Amino acid sequence: MPAPSETQAPARIQIEDPRPLVDCGRYRAKAIEGDSYRVTAKIFKDGADLLRAVVKSRPKGGGEWAEHELTRIDAHVDGDTWAGSFPIPGRGIWEWTIEAWTDTFASWRSEVERKHAAGEPDLSGELSEGRLLMERYGVDPSNADTVERALDPRLLAEAESHPARDDATSLAAPIELQVDRERARFGSWYELFPRSWGGFKGVERQLPRLAELGFDVLYLPPVHPIGVTNRKGRNNVLDAAPEDPGSPWAIGHHDLGGHEAIHPDLGTEDDFRALCRSADEHGIEIALDFAIQTSADHPWLTEHPEWFNRRPDGTLKYAENPPKKYQDIYNVNWDSEDWRGLWQALLEVVLGWIDRGVTIFRVDNPHTKPTPFWEWLLGEVRARHPDVLFLAEAFTRRAKMQTLAKTGFQQSYTYFTWKSSRWELTEYIVELAYSDERHYFRPNFFVNTPDILTEELQHGGRPSFEARLILAATLGPTYGIYSGFENLENVPVRPGSEEYLDSEKYEAKRRSLDGPLLPLIGRINEVRRRHPALRSLDNVTFLDTANDALIGYAKRSYDDIVLVVVNVDPRWPQEGSLVVPAELGLPPAFGIADQLAGDRFTWHLGRNYVRLEPGKSHVLAVTA
Amino acid sequence: MPAPSETQAPARIQIEDPRPLVDCGRYRAKAIEGDSYRVTAKIFKDGADLLRAVVKSRPKGGGEWAEHELTRIDAHVDGDTWAGSFPIPGRGIWEWTIEAWTDTFASWRSEVERKHAAGEPDLSGELSEGRLLMERYGVDPSNADTVERALDPRLLAEAESHPARDDATSLAAPIELQVDRERARFGSWYELFPRSWGGFKGVERQLPRLAELGFDVLYLPPVHPIGVTNRKGRNNVLDAAPEDPGSPWAIGHHDLGGHEAIHPDLGTEDDFRALCRSADEHGIEIALDFAIQTSADHPWLTEHPEWFNRRPDGTLKYAENPPKKYQDIYNVNWDSEDWRGLWQALLEVVLGWIDRGVTIFRVDNPHTKPTPFWEWLLGEVRARHPDVLFLAEAFTRRAKMQTLAKTGFQQSYTYFTWKSSRWELTEYIVELAYSDERHYFRPNFFVNTPDILTEELQHGGRPSFEARLILAATLGPTYGIYSGFENLENVPVRPGSEEYLDSEKYEAKRRSLDGPLLPLIGRINEVRRRHPALRSLDNVTFLDTANDALIGYAKRSYDDIVLVVVNVDPRWPQEGSLVVPAELGLPPAFGIADQLAGDRFTWHLGRNYVRLEPGKSHVLAVTA
Repeated sequence: MPAPSETQAPARIQIEDPRPLVDCGRYRAKAIEGDSYRVTAKIFKDGADLLRAVVKSRPKGGGEWAEHELTRIDAHVDGDTWAGSFPIPGRGIWEWTIEAWTDTFASWRSEVERKHAAGEPDLSGELSEGRLLMERYGVDPSNADTVERALDPRLLAEAESHPARDDATSLAAPIELQVDRERARFGSWYELFPRSWGGFKGVERQLPRLAELGFDVLYLPPVHPIGVTNRKGRNNVLDAAPEDPGSPWAIGHHDLGGHEAIHPDLGTEDDFRALCRSADEHGIEIALDFAIQTSADHPWLTEHPEWFNRRPDGTLKYAENPPKKYQDIYNVNWDSEDWRGLWQALLEVVLGWIDRGVTIFRVDNPHTKPTPFWEWLLGEVRARHPDVLFLAEAFTRRAKMQTLAKTGFQQSYTYFTWKSSRWELTEYIVELAYSDERHYFRPNFFVNTPDILTEELQHGGRPSFEARLILAATLGPTYGIYSGFENLENVPVRPGSEEYLDSEKYEAKRRSLDGPLLPLIGRINEVRRRHPALRSLDNVTFLDTANDALIGYAKRSYDDIVLVVVNVDPRWPQEGSLVVPAELGLPPAFGIADQLAGDRFTWHLGRNYVRLEPGKSHVLAVTA
Repeated sequence: MPAPSETQAPARIQIEDPRPLVDCGRYRAKAIEGDSYRVTAKIFKDGADLLRAVVKSRPKGGGEWAEHELTRIDAHVDGDTWAGSFPIPGRGIWEWTIEAWTDTFASWRSEVERKHAAGEPDLSGELSEGRLLMERYGVDPSNADTVERALDPRLLAEAESHPARDDATSLAAPIELQVDRERARFGSWYELFPRSWGGFKGVERQLPRLAELGFDVLYLPPVHPIGVTNRKGRNNVLDAAPEDPGSPWAIGHHDLGGHEAIHPDLGTEDDFRALCRSADEHGIEIALDFAIQTSADHPWLTEHPEWFNRRPDGTLKYAENPPKKYQDIYNVNWDSEDWRGLWQALLEVVLGWIDRGVTIFRVDNPHTKPTPFWEWLLGEVRARHPDVLFLAEAFTRRAKMQTLAKTGFQQSYTYFTWKSSRWELTEYIVELAYSDERHYFRPNFFVNTPDILTEELQHGGRPSFEARLILAATLGPTYGIYSGFENLENVPVRPGSEEYLDSEKYEAKRRSLDGPLLPLIGRINEVRRRHPALRSLDNVTFLDTANDALIGYAKRSYDDIVLVVVNVDPRWPQEGSLVVPAELGLPPAFGIADQLAGDRFTWHLGRNYVRLEPGKSHVLAVTA
């Protein structure tokens, strides 16, 4: 019979179910620099010994471990779950682990205490054990010759400061964490097509006003040369007129270049660099579209035919996303024998735009590209530019969207635009805020996009625009507006379609920042910046309103509490109550200040009467 | 800039969240030989290609993989979850993995079909692609020169039989599974102290009657010599009278031996072997207690003093489980420098009893011994005797109980005895039957033990004994009775205690199988054997009864459906309804046969009137 093979007895302390953990550690959870990061685990040992545990954290692979105590929580339920937090004072990849050990001195003391309390007459054996322990822990054992003195709390305090860690046990491997800068979680986005604003120089002239309106990110669709073959005309027709500019997503032109080039109508490379610099001075970041697809005229088609998939009859397959057809667009062949060259070229495209001043990439349809490619690309970029952010534009099934987020995308588009009613919105936000998804999936709540004019906006008029704006801006730490929203644009190309009539995707418009919603937008962006409670999603609690047309919720960050109630009925005023629950920790009566209307009231725990005109909201800061 | 380093493009198919998986694969899930084992995973690829997937299974490390198809489930929800089952025709450690690949032919066909349906006029490019594919798949391409012929389902069927597996991807590592024999899940246990029945020979004489009563397992507390130092007297007093036999758990005597020895009052080794043989002939297995602890007189204390923990003053620590004290019992020192020798000796004890005919071990207080020890011991035993089963007697916090089950214990004691009301019982059974625990934790529902005479039994009289019996025997695939239950023994040693007055732990009694509950016990054991529905736990559905004193549930195994309703009120008759839901798949009217009373009725979907005397039950088999 073989004997146990280890030379030391295996660890008797179990550390199980460490959280947050994404796919058993296959992917990284995410955090923001400056966060206090909370972890939990089940920690226990056979028998009744008392344990201690710490979470240890550091930038990946380097430096000393910082230690922070874990404490047992829910002792009245299962008693074996421990929790604690550590601060994250830097960006990049961090790692953490848990170490637990037997607190031999405290275990001994607890035994003596219990037996003494039970009236045990003779504890001399226990005391003899204690004397040895005290010597080991550097505590003067002569102080402990009676039970009463052995139990002196000062002895315990002295012993606790000793570094002894009996049975010390750690997780099998540290758990990694992707730590991003705050813009990865919090920001207000504005999307515009530069060709409708006079190119880069025209856009640059809007920066002061965009900054005044409180926008943090300016997102530009592709700025590259556009193909002429199969160019789409206005309203997506197949036969473009000679003057039609084509879709910016049909990237590449024989003479003008591909993904690395700038459309000459928009300006020069210097103009683009100037735009990025000026934006930076206004506290605005430039987000650029990254669309891995080509027009039929892209230089890669001739320079790298091996990167494309030709049928045996020589034809190329154009892109489709049924029922949508993109006859002006070709996808690359990910199964190309030269996939390495293709990946490398795409990385160089991204690095080139970072060099020009881009700090955020909005990635077009990442779910139709291989997952391993994104994991590689994002890792390569992170290694060089840890502050660059990627937003995944994937409207697809949950598992794919979740996996893209797991590969490292700092933000993701969501189903928010299609969640209208109180109950579907509540269910969806609760999923994002409280499921395991919250550890790696950060939503960006666009209220509209060039592709998405929802039925709600088509039919609800200004009240729906206002309600959706306030919902997005107060539920989503990051939210976005595509240009025209502020003008209440709401006409679809045809009934039942979510495409805009005369879509800016196929024509240039004359745009300016003068829409009727801009004052409200500027106001809510200011409120967002002022209230830390609006910078997170997992701090939301939905509140009863006694009326399904009223959506109510609270957000809290330490002392900052914001209450929101929105009338999502675009046609009628609605009355109800915002029910403030005791667990928010507010006093029975408290002051509130309406951040939109400026009014102040005294509210109470429980029901507070609310009446709102169609589409209107209260955004209420608790003032005392 | 470094180029991607792999020589082949990484797999584009993702296989995520394979289930069942215990602690990310650190431990094994469990199954029973003969099971059809169901697995799920999220499987997807970028883009719109159609995928296929199989689960592959085999005995660990050996033989050909058997493959079974997975299919996409909940396509209307997220569409990326696949499920399938494989049969397990053997015992021991099995392993399974998932392989997924792109069904290139079907993907091409689906594209052609969609475009054709959409009225696409020219599909010559797609057809040229198809011709190449058909050659590759060994399908005659001349049959596919038109769209209509290319879509001929016979071509698809031909192609599907081709072994091509493009992009084939598997899990990073196979997932292991502990496959036990059926007794690990299903069985009726009877516990007795041999010294109250005339030793092994006396017990052997009870075997025909125990078999007639439908018991599968006969569990014996320790049968070893008992220490004399600090021997406990009747009712757990510290000063034993000379004739007091002591507790069987105070194992070991200077002259008579320790864990490997037999108490001479019970019989000889030959008698024990004869008992095991005879039990086997009656279809009954012998389960023996395995308690790792010693009396002060155990030979190991002198032969292996290094296996025990002495205080500096020379005293040994006796065992405690506050507020219980075991002054007659000493624990071993798991931190001994010779822990290897200790582990090995314990393994040899177990192997010795297996050699004598024991097939099941009921392990006393395993949660006070190191988890790694159990993982090692169970593995060593399994390698030699894969049919030997271990039952963990741990009444402690959930995490510890769960981890013991994860290390390989085939069965576990539960909190069942203390779950009395309809709602607490429902909540607990749902946890065991539907949480992830079900994959590794198999409950054994004892109605009482020598340590547990619940208040419910103390005060409820015969009705409570009957109700608890039927609940245990119909909810638990495995359940047990400690001798005396059938006699309605219900007097505690003092008010508020769960200990029996004149407990058999400290004295020998004169027992015989003549209790008034035996006919009901025999009857329900027979019903259990006849109905496959009663052999599982995760097939239970709780039913509404419109009365909290009536607990109702259904169990189903294929065509076998059993409905149970129990009146848990020991004092009054109760009326209500058993509400049969449509999802059981029964016709609007169906026959039922009461397995206890013998009556037959016609019942209906929806409410069926029920009236039950105190403690009585209906156990109803659906007959048509």
